[in-house]
Amino acid sequence: MDLWVEECQKNIVGLKFRVVETLFSGKSEFQQIDIVETAGHGRMLLIDSLVMISERDEFIYHDMIAHVPLFSHPAPRRVLVIGGGDGGTLREVLRHDSVEECVMVEIDPVVVKACKQFIPQTAHAMDDPRARVLIEDGVKFVRETNEKFDVVLVDSTDPIGPATPLFGEEFYRNVNRILEPGGIVVAQGESPFYEMETQKAMLQRLAGVFPKTGVYNYTNLTYPGALWSFVYATNGPSLRSPEIRDRIEEAGLSCRYYNPGLHLAAFQLPTFQQELLQEWLTD
Amino acid sequence: MDLWVEECQKNIVGLKFRVVETLFSGKSEFQQIDIVETAGHGRMLLIDSLVMISERDEFIYHDMIAHVPLFSHPAPRRVLVIGGGDGGTLREVLRHDSVEECVMVEIDPVVVKACKQFIPQTAHAMDDPRARVLIEDGVKFVRETNEKFDVVLVDSTDPIGPATPLFGEEFYRNVNRILEPGGIVVAQGESPFYEMETQKAMLQRLAGVFPKTGVYNYTNLTYPGALWSFVYATNGPSLRSPEIRDRIEEAGLSCRYYNPGLHLAAFQLPTFQQELLQEWLTD
Repeated sequence: MDLWVEECQKNIVGLKFRVVETLFSGKSEFQQIDIVETAGHGRMLLIDSLVMISERDEFIYHDMIAHVPLFSHPAPRRVLVIGGGDGGTLREVLRHDSVEECVMVEIDPVVVKACKQFIPQTAHAMDDPRARVLIEDGVKFVRETNEKFDVVLVDSTDPIGPATPLFGEEFYRNVNRILEPGGIVVAQGESPFYEMETQKAMLQRLAGVFPKTGVYNYTNLTYPGALWSFVYATNGPSLRSPEIRDRIEEAGLSCRYYNPGLHLAAFQLPTFQQELLQEWLTD
Repeated sequence: MDLWVEECQKNIVGLKFRVVETLFSGKSEFQQIDIVETAGHGRMLLIDSLVMISERDEFIYHDMIAHVPLFSHPAPRRVLVIGGGDGGTLREVLRHDSVEECVMVEIDPVVVKACKQFIPQTAHAMDDPRARVLIEDGVKFVRETNEKFDVVLVDSTDPIGPATPLFGEEFYRNVNRILEPGGIVVAQGESPFYEMETQKAMLQRLAGVFPKTGVYNYTNLTYPGALWSFVYATNGPSLRSPEIRDRIEEAGLSCRYYNPGLHLAAFQLPTFQQELLQEWLTD
């Protein structure tokens, strides 16, 4: 039998991966969760039939969501991850020695449990003593908490299903409230090709709350659209200042995708994207 | 009827596009050529069932194969394009005022004829008075010609079928022979994800012939692998020197993908690619 998982975008493009075996299939109160062993991409997590991560290329996404803001901040001590139930973002955050605690707030216990069992490559980070994993609604958490954070990472699915409120203005007002001075927030920002309107809307919303906003890009092997983005905001120094390069070099953290040159290169947007977003590229 | 064209890579990943109508389907002495109208990517050229270009995203590939070397050269007057039968590379080359003539050598007349009829967006460039289009084997051309060029662009399909000799060392020895002092050669360099060994072999081959070699990246919406590369070599100044930025800014050429920041950013490779190719990244 020839098995494939396939993700279709706007009914114009499809990306599919050959599957060897289904390892987990379950429905939580929020969504459908599947983990498959693929023929060429290691284990793969799908939520509501959309690819979240594959073992083969998750290092790219996780390098870029975590290290760009964490190296841009002079000394991040407390980090909040919203979503990110696979643990990959947490894993990269905890590679920074300055981080004393990383709180991860994931709404869906089924995602966490399934990843712990089947994708230890990312999920092992949840056992780190500096990690505090809360099974809770991230929107509610940022509304109610009195804790403060240096960096907030919104590691969410697309703006459908339980992640929808993570794309709203109220959420970001609360993020701003719990950010320390000099704080940075980064969020999964969709693709400039197939989801430019969503990306623009996200950035506009951030710009309504924060003084400085921007976008940086990376490539994604398992999402349709090739070029993908993170949107970000800060109430502190620029994420693009050249001295960040020295900070990265001094740290000597070895990453398979991210490196000092790539940090600054990621902010160089293609012209079409730059022109569409210009008004809100204020960092 | 729900029609899709699909390209499969190593039987582990597939990328497919919804088709509205087949506009052209023909077999030349070299290969199968199809042009389809897609639902979301405009017209699309396929050779031997592999996607070559789509009207929606061809600007990325053509910006990057042409403008990176042409702006790196202080005054490119004569340019040679090997392959590139759709005309898109030629079109971007001819946007440079310094270019007096661009010779395009395409082996397959059926590709040229079909593109002229169905993809004028790229093919119109072949009617430019500064273009000289030869229907001829590019390998033979570089072996036999006495002409010299400032920039040579190898705009080829994958190293299967008629393009295979374009990936060989003899071909590049001849390219070196017909390059002016300070000349640059750029070639379609495959994907660092799914075709890293091919990329490495190409770069090694260039390094056996030219003093300075390197790689730069771009994203491709219609080829599987997201991140794609061009390999290059030069017997002149670096393609990465910061003053190139000023040259691009002065020219004021408006491109939908390429811009001064992106020129230098494209050379910042992900760590895994940098480590694998390090020995031959001599520019």
